[in-house]
Amino acid sequence: MTRYKLTIEYDGAPFVGWQRQTSGGSIQQCLEEAVEKFCGEKATVHGAGRTDAGVHALGQVAHVDIERATTSFRIMEALNHHLKPNPVAVLDCTEVEGGFHARFDATERRYSYRIANRRAPLTLDAGRAWRIARPLDASAMHAAAQVLTGSHDFSSFRATECQAPSPVKTLDALEVRREGADIVINAHSRSFLHHQVRNMVGTLALVGEGKWSSDDVADALAARDRSAAGPTAPAHGLYLVSVGYDG
Amino acid sequence: MTRYKLTIEYDGAPFVGWQRQTSGGSIQQCLEEAVEKFCGEKATVHGAGRTDAGVHALGQVAHVDIERATTSFRIMEALNHHLKPNPVAVLDCTEVEGGFHARFDATERRYSYRIANRRAPLTLDAGRAWRIARPLDASAMHAAAQVLTGSHDFSSFRATECQAPSPVKTLDALEVRREGADIVINAHSRSFLHHQVRNMVGTLALVGEGKWSSDDVADALAARDRSAAGPTAPAHGLYLVSVGYDG
Repeated sequence: MTRYKLTIEYDGAPFVGWQRQTSGGSIQQCLEEAVEKFCGEKATVHGAGRTDAGVHALGQVAHVDIERATTSFRIMEALNHHLKPNPVAVLDCTEVEGGFHARFDATERRYSYRIANRRAPLTLDAGRAWRIARPLDASAMHAAAQVLTGSHDFSSFRATECQAPSPVKTLDALEVRREGADIVINAHSRSFLHHQVRNMVGTLALVGEGKWSSDDVADALAARDRSAAGPTAPAHGLYLVSVGYDG
Repeated sequence: MTRYKLTIEYDGAPFVGWQRQTSGGSIQQCLEEAVEKFCGEKATVHGAGRTDAGVHALGQVAHVDIERATTSFRIMEALNHHLKPNPVAVLDCTEVEGGFHARFDATERRYSYRIANRRAPLTLDAGRAWRIARPLDASAMHAAAQVLTGSHDFSSFRATECQAPSPVKTLDALEVRREGADIVINAHSRSFLHHQVRNMVGTLALVGEGKWSSDDVADALAARDRSAAGPTAPAHGLYLVSVGYDG
């Protein structure tokens, strides 16, 4: 039995999310079925981040134990073959120690959120970004985002169904910048609460539209009440970019 | 009657190409139907570049004459409304002089071609780039591309069905660079022959794989024979980026 670390990319659109659910197809299920088609083994694929329905990944990380003796390169190729036609791909496969755990050993997670700030409907980027027609002030959004960095009780930005034991998280960075017609928001933390990034983005959009100030964001954070912050930004603008590990 | 210049973005995947054809839906047809739905007028939408089936545009330019008295902003909004659910969007609409012609007045066209140079199948970028699994040498491709810049008889890179009166074109720039796992090829010319960019990209891919040298590309160009150059790169990696006009 060997443990492998997988780096995974996916288009979240057709899935109920990362995690197996009875209500529809998940990315985890696709991967577990691909493992079984490859080697006949019913293995659990443990992901580092339980992305929601519609959320994309450029670098999700997972681990899986496989008994068949083979190489990590062959596993990557075989999983990609059996994953078709699902929009899920294994970008990298590495043999790791038996004690490695994709979720519990992760020391940083990076998410990116993409807003298409334009009047015209999206064509090539449909389902890949949140379109906001009204002009957004990216500088004001970035300034307000700095209110949220550091260690805080993020109850105002936490989904009611969040299962984390504590609402306190340390947000290492939250950066907002304009790239042409796009507004890109990068968030970096050891871990996030459920919907935390999308709730922060929905709140920063209010700042970008000039409806809220940085002080309003500070007040929302201090309230420790979900109803005090802005709406949840749509899932399809969110990307799990990478998961980091010590050493 | 007022003439309007439209800047248009589209996902080329579901279309037979820019131009109206009996064999299926075209981008031109989508736009002409949107104009008719908006103002009841049967107008021809003249495009600057006749992109092929599957080719995308970030900044196609077209002109159209509309009788109804209105503003360019309202036309843009109305066309975008009536273009749904087709993946075609009007990014800009400007009133122009009656003598303006999107195709004949164009003085430069910029195309970009995207190669995803990786083993894993594409997920988010499926239909948006040409995946080549073998590692490509972008520097060698760029060096070989310089053989093609300037004024030449491009018969070796011209589709047999090309209707241009002459195979001589002046290629102002052909640049190849690596951007992470992508290879981006930017081409810039007053005008291009049919399939010219895709045939140049297919040839440069041979250089990137180490099968061809810059001298082989020079020999292919000198042969003035389509069979002397490389294969035609797939349509779905090609983007019409912009069309330029004097003044």
